[in-house]
Parts: sequence; C-alpha cells; structure tokens
Amino acid sequence: MLDVKVIRQNFPIYEHNKDLVYLDTGASSLKPKAVIDQVDHYYSNLGVNVHRGVYGLSYEATDLYEEARTTVAKFINANFDEVVFTRGTTASLNMVAQSYLSVLKEGDEIITSELEHHSSMLPWLNVSKKTNAKLNYVKLNDEGRITVEAFKDVLTTNTKVVALTYVSNVMGYITPIEEIIKLAHEVGAVVIVDAAQAAPHMPINVKSLDCDYLAFSGHKILGPTGIGVLYGKKHLLDQMEPSEYGGDMVDFVVKDNAKWKDTPYKFEAGTPIISGAIGLSSAIKYLMSIGFEAIEAHTKELHRYTLEKLKDIKGIEVYNSKSDTGIITFNIIGVHPHDAASIFDKNKVCIRAGHHCAQLITKWLGQIATLRATLYIYNNYEDCDRFIDSVKETIDFFNQF
Amino acid sequence: MLDVKVIRQNFPIYEHNKDLVYLDTGASSLKPKAVIDQVDHYYSNLGVNVHRGVYGLSYEATDLYEEARTTVAKFINANFDEVVFTRGTTASLNMVAQSYLSVLKEGDEIITSELEHHSSMLPWLNVSKKTNAKLNYVKLNDEGRITVEAFKDVLTTNTKVVALTYVSNVMGYITPIEEIIKLAHEVGAVVIVDAAQAAPHMPINVKSLDCDYLAFSGHKILGPTGIGVLYGKKHLLDQMEPSEYGGDMVDFVVKDNAKWKDTPYKFEAGTPIISGAIGLSSAIKYLMSIGFEAIEAHTKELHRYTLEKLKDIKGIEVYNSKSDTGIITFNIIGVHPHDAASIFDKNKVCIRAGHHCAQLITKWLGQIATLRATLYIYNNYEDCDRFIDSVKETIDFFNQF
Repeated sequence: MLDVKVIRQNFPIYEHNKDLVYLDTGASSLKPKAVIDQVDHYYSNLGVNVHRGVYGLSYEATDLYEEARTTVAKFINANFDEVVFTRGTTASLNMVAQSYLSVLKEGDEIITSELEHHSSMLPWLNVSKKTNAKLNYVKLNDEGRITVEAFKDVLTTNTKVVALTYVSNVMGYITPIEEIIKLAHEVGAVVIVDAAQAAPHMPINVKSLDCDYLAFSGHKILGPTGIGVLYGKKHLLDQMEPSEYGGDMVDFVVKDNAKWKDTPYKFEAGTPIISGAIGLSSAIKYLMSIGFEAIEAHTKELHRYTLEKLKDIKGIEVYNSKSDTGIITFNIIGVHPHDAASIFDKNKVCIRAGHHCAQLITKWLGQIATLRATLYIYNNYEDCDRFIDSVKETIDFFNQF
Repeated sequence: MLDVKVIRQNFPIYEHNKDLVYLDTGASSLKPKAVIDQVDHYYSNLGVNVHRGVYGLSYEATDLYEEARTTVAKFINANFDEVVFTRGTTASLNMVAQSYLSVLKEGDEIITSELEHHSSMLPWLNVSKKTNAKLNYVKLNDEGRITVEAFKDVLTTNTKVVALTYVSNVMGYITPIEEIIKLAHEVGAVVIVDAAQAAPHMPINVKSLDCDYLAFSGHKILGPTGIGVLYGKKHLLDQMEPSEYGGDMVDFVVKDNAKWKDTPYKFEAGTPIISGAIGLSSAIKYLMSIGFEAIEAHTKELHRYTLEKLKDIKGIEVYNSKSDTGIITFNIIGVHPHDAASIFDKNKVCIRAGHHCAQLITKWLGQIATLRATLYIYNNYEDCDRFIDSVKETIDFFNQF
C-alpha cells in the first residue's frame, strides 16, 4: 500500500480539509503541490508567450512548454511530434472526428459502444449524421463489458473508424483494446482510444497498442484544468486537416492562401495553454515517481476492501463489482442518487451522482442515475470506512420514511 | 500617470527581475498576484470539477466558475448567457467561422482586412475555400487603417459576414467598428469583432457596438493562458451549432440522437477551463480597479514620450507613429529584426520581432518582419528610456560593420 500520510502532504487541499474524503477522482483529481508550484512558477516568474518572443523569458517559457511535450511523449511512448496539446480529451476526440467529416461517406461504418463517455460517442454521432456513415454499437456482454467477440460481430469490411474507451468511466472496465486494434487494422479501420480514465490508472504505450489516435486530459491525472493531449500517428496527423486556424500554426499567409506548419504545431493555433502544459508535465512526473504498479496495487486493495464491506449491506446495488479499476458505481435501492449524495456531502464524503456524462451505459444499467465513488492514491482505509458509514447512514435515514 | 511602483508590487515577476523592461504585452501580459493567487486557491483548496459534483467543494468551484461568467458579462456589457468560455480568441473566432461552413454558399461574400491577426482572417479563408464564398479585403488607407469609406467600397448586398479586428496588433489602430457594424447590418451581414488587442486597452460594450460576435483572450488582459471568451448575441448563439460534442453540453443522449443544452453550455463540452475562467475573473476585477481611463492616459503618455525620443534617432523607421494604443512597430534600417532583438534581450528589454501572426500587414508595410514594443500599465518612463538606449545601442553596434 502507498503511504497515504506522506502522499497527502503533497496535496495542499488536505491541509485545510483534514476530514475530506475525496472519492470523485473519476470526474477530476486533486492537485499536488508540485503541479500548483509549477503553474505558480510560470505565472510569477515568466507569464510570457512561447515561440514568439526573442528574449530570455520567452525562451524559458518555450523550453518548459516543449519539455512538457517530451514528458508526455515519454509517458505514452510516442514520438515528440505525435503529441498535440489540446483543451482536454473532449477537444482531442472532436478534432479527430471533425477531420473525418470530409473522409467518410454513405456505406462507411463507425463502431462505438454504449460504454462510452459522451465525448467519445457524440462526435461520431455527429459525423454519422452528416456523412450518412452508419454508427454501430458493440453489444455489451452481461457484465456490461466490450468483448473481442462482440466487437467481431459488428466489424465489417466497411468499418472505417473505431472509437472506443480504454477504461469505462462508469464501470471501470478495461477494454481489450489491443486485440480490437489488431482486428480493426485488418479491415483498414483507424482506432481512436479515449484514455481519459485509463491515464490515471495504468501505463499507456501507444506503440505497443498500435492505436491510431489516443486522447487524455490533464485534470484527471493530477494536472491542471483546460489541458489535454491528442496523440496521433505521425502519418495520420500529417494528413489531418487542422481544426483551428490562427497564429503560430502557419508558415506563410497570402491573401488567398496559406501553408500550415508541420505537426504537431499545425494543430496548436493561437497562444497555447502554456501553464496547463507545464503543469501537466509536473503531474506526469509526480505520477511516475509513484509508479503505476504501486498505484494499481493501492487502488485495487482499497477496492477489494470496500466491496467486501459493501457485500454485507442490504439495500444497495453495486453495478460493477468486477471493475478492473477503483471505480464503484452503485445505487441505494429506493433512494434517488441526488438525495443520497446529500448525506455523503454532509459527512464530507465526495462522490458523484448522475449519469456521469455516459447516459447510454446508465440506461443500459436500467437506471436514470447512479452514485459513483473512485478510489485513488490519496485515499486510505479510513476513507473507505467513512464511505461505508455514509452508505449505511443513507439507508437508515431513508428507511424511516 | 499610474503609480507604477505600486502596480509593480502586484506583479511578482518584478520581485526577482527588478531590471526587467517588459514591452511585449501585445503577445501576452504579465500576471498580477490577484490572478496567481486565485488560480492557486482553486488548485489548493478545490481542484474539483464543476456542474457535476453534488458536494460542497464542487458547488464552490461551480459558483466561482459561473461568477466568472457574470464578471465577463459585466466587463463587456453582455448578458450572462451570451458569454461562452473558450481556449482563447483563436478558438472563439474559429468556432464562429466553422458554424458558417453550412450557412455560406457561392455568391456570398465575406469581408476581412490585411490588418487582421491570422486568427481573424485564416478561419474565413478556410470557409471561403470550402463554401466558394468570396473573401474580400478592405483596402487600407495610406496609414494602413481600415476606414469607413474603404469598407463601403467592398460592402455589397451579397456580404454575409464581416470579420474585422477592433484594434490591430501590429499598428495599434482602433477600427471605426461601430459605424462598420451599422453599415453591415443594413445589408444583413453579421459582424465578428476580434477584440484580443482591444480588451487590454479600452472598455468594450457589445450592446452599444451592436456587434454580433466578439472574442478576446485572458492572457492578454493579465489573466491565465488557455482561457478566452466568445460573446454572441443570444439568438445567434441559439442558432449556432456546437463545434464540440461531449459531456456537460447535452441534455439527453440516445444511441441515434441527442439534445443539446441551452447557450452558453452547449458550447462548453467537457470539463471547462475552470482555473482559467476563475483567474480571468480576477484579472478583469484588477483591470477594472485601475480603470480604462487611467490605463489609456498612462499608455498614451508613455507612447508620446517614446515617440518623441525616437524622432531624434536616425536609422530607425516607425511604421505606426499615429497608433491609437501603446504599440510601436518599427525597424532599424539595415538590421534584421531578429538580430536587433538580441541586443534588446541582452539589456533585458523584452520586445517582439517577427510578423506578429499578421503576415498580411507586415507585407503591406513592405517588410518581412518588424520589431514591436507594447506599452502597458506596469511600464514607466525608465522603461521607455532603456528601450531608447537599446535602439541607439543597436544602431551603433551594427554601424560598425
């Protein structure tokens, strides 16, 4: 197990919130001092633009910004020029989808799943509507998982695009994405991997996955808000049209023409999210210093511990007891999730209630909304106990009526 | 004149850089402590997501985020639901342009100018190429200004879109945008105002301008990087299609359909740039506490002072001596701007060399690149003197050869 006492010393929020039980990392993680300090350093000591200035402060900001790209490239085993900084996973996935508006046509097929976050399926629903390409959903198995077998059932020679999540933000399942990618490539389809929930929990290796595009966000892996990454294979990014036009992405401009810079810069129009990229770099370094093996072991143990205790409680329904990551999605029978959440809130136990921007899987579960708790590196057994206590208190409270 | 000694106490960068002469606010402004502290506050004490959580910290983050929208709305005299948070001016302007891809057609006309930043004209060059709508450029007058007369010359009954800068980032000229908007509306065209360089220098009133869309960035008005604003008239935003699809922008989703939220939320897919918006709010409050009247008077006086001294120097060419704002664009005759800039850098005088993401006006000036100095609230007479000294030193140095 991780030494949570030491870890919490790195997260300033615990200083003034000693009794905080934060179980909503699936929505956004807390931020360590290393990230906050680096963002602060940029604003306090630099604050200037990158790429443009011909003075020391600007060179320094540029170095930090491009060093962040190197850090991200190492983090996912990509090449430097395959890493595009974006506003977040949503922006990354939309960029890719938009670029296929001019590629796909009637008769083409797109595969996605009901397990997707809205940001992974809605961009392709839009592309499907506009191009008349058919949008197919992988049939989930009884547990709600994407299986290779079910994927084969919807894969055809007309499949051009596969857009799937690496780790579900509701069920916490890991998709067998490597095999899926192999199969997709056999029919010549590209695969876009939504790694927003994978990035906090497991090492990502785009080369061994052989995925064509992959996206994740800073704010879910201890980094700043408003920063994300789009990975794309170099030759695909080279073919891909920019989604935004402006400064810093263009080599030359005349009144009726323009020539874009090479990747990744042609996708980063305008002043970049400098503090975001720099902060993300610190977040990745912090995560790597802990190591994914330790992170996985820690969250799995807390997950096992919590599930074990939940088993003994009557009146609760857990939808993903076989989750591969530290996500517990559940409902208290007969109690609306938002009503339940208010009791958790009173006890300073932060969980999420709703459809988690994934209405299809929530509907698949036969629910309108669910409660979700995510376990992460700053959580300990005590957090799990206080979570369990809140579950019990909620059941007891609503049993009165 | 502003008390620059007091102002600099609010900008931490001067603590460790007492001899810094920062004259590149046109690219990005320095950041005051109020902004840095607010970003720090969010990351240290909240760090969580907005809109989604049903717990105290998330409510608090949501309140701060939406309060930032109120602050921006007041800043430009817009309504709350007409303010969309984006990644920056570039993203804002691209969002609008993209939405016209499905509106414009052959025979339609778009008006822009050679005075534009790339982010204001490139999105429309793209729309023009894809829709076959004609892209017309307002002919600049001898000073390089957009005039109402010249605008009339290109305005036709086929004009559907006018995309112009409010203040030029190279020349510092204020466009007579209010009269242009009136004329454009007479033929039924919409007007998109690039206010990136206007926002730091003058009060913006979207209602009295009657502009249809307006965009600006946080990082040029003392705020964070990676945050910007798109203002749009409510009925136009209501008609406008979202440019990104994902979480938090959608009311309901089924496998083959989805219904978006109302404006402004339908344009803010995914986790918002929370720290950016919150920091921008602090930046605006800081600016308002100084007041635009004082800002304008201060920069105008420094501008007058500097131009007066530059007049006596032989071997320098100033391209915008009638600039309406504190922007001085110039070259040292016979010296490449990048070579010149290195001497300024040695003296810790930060100016910019290049085409300033505005190649058309640079070309119009007959140059490949220019030097640009921007005067702002944290600059004083001493900065101007040291700038002048560097100009002289550069001339002397290159005269040796």
